[in-house]
Amino acid sequence: MLLITGNKNKVKEFEEILGFKIKSLSLDLEEIQEVDIEKVSEYKARKAYEKTKEPIIVEDIGLFFDELNGLPGALIKWFEKRLSYEEICNLIKKNRKATAKICITYFNGKKIKQFIGEIKGTISDKPRGENGFGWDCIFIPKGSEKTFAEMKKEEKNNISMRKIALEKMKSCNFVF
Amino acid sequence: MLLITGNKNKVKEFEEILGFKIKSLSLDLEEIQEVDIEKVSEYKARKAYEKTKEPIIVEDIGLFFDELNGLPGALIKWFEKRLSYEEICNLIKKNRKATAKICITYFNGKKIKQFIGEIKGTISDKPRGENGFGWDCIFIPKGSEKTFAEMKKEEKNNISMRKIALEKMKSCNFVF
Repeated sequence: MLLITGNKNKVKEFEEILGFKIKSLSLDLEEIQEVDIEKVSEYKARKAYEKTKEPIIVEDIGLFFDELNGLPGALIKWFEKRLSYEEICNLIKKNRKATAKICITYFNGKKIKQFIGEIKGTISDKPRGENGFGWDCIFIPKGSEKTFAEMKKEEKNNISMRKIALEKMKSCNFVF
Repeated sequence: MLLITGNKNKVKEFEEILGFKIKSLSLDLEEIQEVDIEKVSEYKARKAYEKTKEPIIVEDIGLFFDELNGLPGALIKWFEKRLSYEEICNLIKKNRKATAKICITYFNGKKIKQFIGEIKGTISDKPRGENGFGWDCIFIPKGSEKTFAEMKKEEKNNISMRKIALEKMKSCNFVF
């Protein structure tokens, strides 16, 4: 089983939660235009399998703003490329509720299986915190006052959507 | 030469400006995640050629907001799926300048050629007009007070970015 990522910390997080060693591979995969991370992730999984011919895992993350009816979702990376986090915060006028969502997709050439991890929260008024990466500085998980980027790594990992998805993956006794 | 579209009016507009008959074909093609229409269009052209094995033309349109540093661009269709035009107008706070841009891509399996048509303008405060389709109701081309959707068809076609791109295509004496 091959985890498609160039991020060694991600590999470590997968291994820690799943409880076994995982090989990883960095692949540059094209992505389809979609807000839904499930579709983006399935497409990517099939493309990765085409190249590797091995059972693979990919993951995709999205940030869904209530006020923007789910936008940007999987398109968040385009917002990040074009706008500052301050500007992204300013896109919202009233309703700051948002959902952070991860989709981990396993594909072995025949069977496809997806595990979703989802956390409700809000988008901060402006970016805060130095830890983490990407939009961690603007997402405040429900029940906390801190953005992900204001949390220590352990604190964040404990409530991360990746953890939720990986726990599901582990608990379904999926045979790899 | 095959124009990839399901829209008969578009075929007619191509034929009128280019001055010859064009066959068309409706194909459902996947699109990559991109703000730049040139990249989206090239990808689509290659996919269309893979299916048809004939010289093809595809076109892609984007709407680029200055205040959002070029967003949504080719991603405008996702904004339209998730938000009302009123909500899209409200995304802008101060700088209402925008560019409407079309990219017509020709690909014959070897050579790729792109023709760009671009119009500067502004995004209206709220949607106006009943003509046209899509975001015509929120785009006011420079020099006009009307949105595209407030113009008669002839008036709009005379200044459309499609016309600009097709005139370029015609004038370059591209051998099809």
